[in-house]
Amino acid sequence: MTTNPPSAAGPSLVNAPNSALFTDQYELTMLQASLHSGAAHRRAVFEAFARRLPAGRRYGVVAGTGRLLESLATFRFDDVQLGFLSDHRIVDDATLAWLADFRFSGSISGYAEGEAYFPNSPILIVESSFAEACILETLILSILNHDSAIASAASRMTGAAADRPCIEMGSRRTHEESAVAAARAAIIGGFASTSNLEAGRRYGLPTVGTAAHSFTLLHDSERAAFEAQVASLGCGTSLLVDTYDVEQGVRTAVEVAGPELGAVRLDSGDLVAQARWVRELLDDLGNHNTKIVVTSDLDEFAIGLLAAAPVDSYGVGTSLVTGSGAPTAGMVYKLVSRQDDDGTFVSVAKAAMNKASVGGLKHALRRLDEHGTAEAEVVGIGISPADDGNDRPLMQEFVRDGVVLPGWTGPEAVVRAAERHRQSIAELPGAVRRLQRGEPVIPTEYEEAP
Amino acid sequence: MTTNPPSAAGPSLVNAPNSALFTDQYELTMLQASLHSGAAHRRAVFEAFARRLPAGRRYGVVAGTGRLLESLATFRFDDVQLGFLSDHRIVDDATLAWLADFRFSGSISGYAEGEAYFPNSPILIVESSFAEACILETLILSILNHDSAIASAASRMTGAAADRPCIEMGSRRTHEESAVAAARAAIIGGFASTSNLEAGRRYGLPTVGTAAHSFTLLHDSERAAFEAQVASLGCGTSLLVDTYDVEQGVRTAVEVAGPELGAVRLDSGDLVAQARWVRELLDDLGNHNTKIVVTSDLDEFAIGLLAAAPVDSYGVGTSLVTGSGAPTAGMVYKLVSRQDDDGTFVSVAKAAMNKASVGGLKHALRRLDEHGTAEAEVVGIGISPADDGNDRPLMQEFVRDGVVLPGWTGPEAVVRAAERHRQSIAELPGAVRRLQRGEPVIPTEYEEAP
Repeated sequence: MTTNPPSAAGPSLVNAPNSALFTDQYELTMLQASLHSGAAHRRAVFEAFARRLPAGRRYGVVAGTGRLLESLATFRFDDVQLGFLSDHRIVDDATLAWLADFRFSGSISGYAEGEAYFPNSPILIVESSFAEACILETLILSILNHDSAIASAASRMTGAAADRPCIEMGSRRTHEESAVAAARAAIIGGFASTSNLEAGRRYGLPTVGTAAHSFTLLHDSERAAFEAQVASLGCGTSLLVDTYDVEQGVRTAVEVAGPELGAVRLDSGDLVAQARWVRELLDDLGNHNTKIVVTSDLDEFAIGLLAAAPVDSYGVGTSLVTGSGAPTAGMVYKLVSRQDDDGTFVSVAKAAMNKASVGGLKHALRRLDEHGTAEAEVVGIGISPADDGNDRPLMQEFVRDGVVLPGWTGPEAVVRAAERHRQSIAELPGAVRRLQRGEPVIPTEYEEAP
Repeated sequence: MTTNPPSAAGPSLVNAPNSALFTDQYELTMLQASLHSGAAHRRAVFEAFARRLPAGRRYGVVAGTGRLLESLATFRFDDVQLGFLSDHRIVDDATLAWLADFRFSGSISGYAEGEAYFPNSPILIVESSFAEACILETLILSILNHDSAIASAASRMTGAAADRPCIEMGSRRTHEESAVAAARAAIIGGFASTSNLEAGRRYGLPTVGTAAHSFTLLHDSERAAFEAQVASLGCGTSLLVDTYDVEQGVRTAVEVAGPELGAVRLDSGDLVAQARWVRELLDDLGNHNTKIVVTSDLDEFAIGLLAAAPVDSYGVGTSLVTGSGAPTAGMVYKLVSRQDDDGTFVSVAKAAMNKASVGGLKHALRRLDEHGTAEAEVVGIGISPADDGNDRPLMQEFVRDGVVLPGWTGPEAVVRAAERHRQSIAELPGAVRRLQRGEPVIPTEYEEAP
């Protein structure tokens, strides 16, 4: 394993593109119409939240906030973006002029990355003019919905794996840039490492990887392949032993690499039974320290079923990067409060069937009992909920008057988020680790100003 | 709707990052070990294919090849990439030197974008040294697996929609770069337009969008919001009428915009019943030309159920960008043939349980009956299958000796792929349009050299 400590120079965003057009057209047509009516300049509060968790899930894990804050820096309408909007007459000249000058000048607060969340947790709150908050909608939701879906799945997997490390290796099953974000979210959700090199470079994540079946097939024999791998990568490497016959593969691996062979990898078949006899065989051959890595369409349930098998680590791909059945977190971004012409704030909410929202600026805390175990998610509407002394405030400040506050971006933010994830899950009732479908592990309660 | 014709200057790849590290670490450790053993230089044939379609699907649609060919140009190990690999000792100096000089010099062929595919269709074939083909694996699979999953879902939706246009509006439900690729894949799968501005800019796709609930809530009344929108965007715009009461919303929309109101959008409730009485109400009010756009968690089944309702177009989000239950196409990339030391090619295949592959260089054609209807996917192993005169060869040449051939990249490729998709689906048996779970609509048959 190669561990990549965060560079002292901070995050290296060489691949950071301009993010301004990661935006639905209607954000800009709304901007145009509201500039025309003058309402664009009304102060507004938008809130990102999930009406519900994916079916049967007991909690979600926030991720993506750091990436969002990094992307704010490239949300600029430069010549390329303005030229496109102008050439295709997507917005009028007044709107183009406004966009050319755009720098986000508002404030953003919410749940820190790694924090558990529940239905209607106020995960991100944007306070600014309507215009500024409106045009960020698509980017905010893209990032939070993707990254939180992956972190939430990762958390269930690492819970099932308990003390055994999980390795993220799903890059090939998702879009190439999603893969980088997924690796980052997996680490936040408790994974130990990733196969994705760009994620290693960009976020200082630990990266791992040795060889695939093609490497064995390339050589004239499995033995020749193992010899080549050990000669180049050392006997501490992991040898993939299931290209032909697993028992013969294990014997050859031990013969070639000797007692210090790092690990064997099993990628097919009945992994529970196989891990048992491979462990026995390794022990019989004297390779007590050689570990067993399993990969092969694992998800949290397969990991749980392997708990009693002598496995040392889990490599997870498809099911992690597709959110294990819930590839998007289903968060929405709603206007909850805005100024009237006389400057007073008015709570607003739509009444549309099955999509009703709760108006008003939200605050939140996690209500804890005397043992420090969470009892409820308390959301205050327009007020800070009463804290009985044990409770933990959840709202963090990320951006103040257009300035991103330190500590929420770059490799540092990922390290902090992974630690926060551990603490946040540990604080929840034990049922949080149940994989079976159920209700959220704590209820969401509201407090309103009297 | 704003239609963005492809720019005469070709694709504008301003956001194109360096793609070299969108790569699993093991591709580079295999490279190192094979450079060490010398096997890296053996000529090799890799094949990307899907062992099976997602459960119950009757066909898949290839997408991503154009993006892959565009990404090849940025697959370069420059100072940033080499510095990362060197600093973290991921590969040795000999490997770094090889990577610094890397330019893909092999050949790539396969199924054109928009083509239907089936289990074991040889979708992409890479012929080069083992080293060159190996390090492209992750990028190839990321792009093909993501984009084909979206195009396959899109195709089912546009089939269900028949002559009514589908609008892609899922950007907020997926990673911000996936959203751009998803919009591109949706257009290949038959969608008419997208809300995603970056996709419009990069690929010349038609973009659309008007307003959200927040725009109504921003204003002092629904009437004030509609007046602001019509004043700025004209009466041909779409007004969202379900923020408060739908009937009142429709009446206000017609009062504000008059008989030339372009469309009303319905985004909640029982869309079938609602579309019926909204159509009647619009007609009663004299707005016979005002269209009805429906959005709200639509998928191919919901679209099918709306076939008998008076709906004019469908906006599709979440379910499209998550592949409608199959967020990844499940393609794999396997070494199927490679040289021996004496230069002869040897077919290779792994025997691993439940993951067996078929060795040998593949060719493919679609067997057609005398009416031009597809009967079988015929895959030749090491030979071109016999063509009875009606059959359609499927293999296209994309890259020859490192040079990307014209016509397969940029906006032009998307237009061609969308047309090819129409033709490819039209050629399949009628059961291709059945949404119910079933077997692939044509069988895959093999032909081997005698």
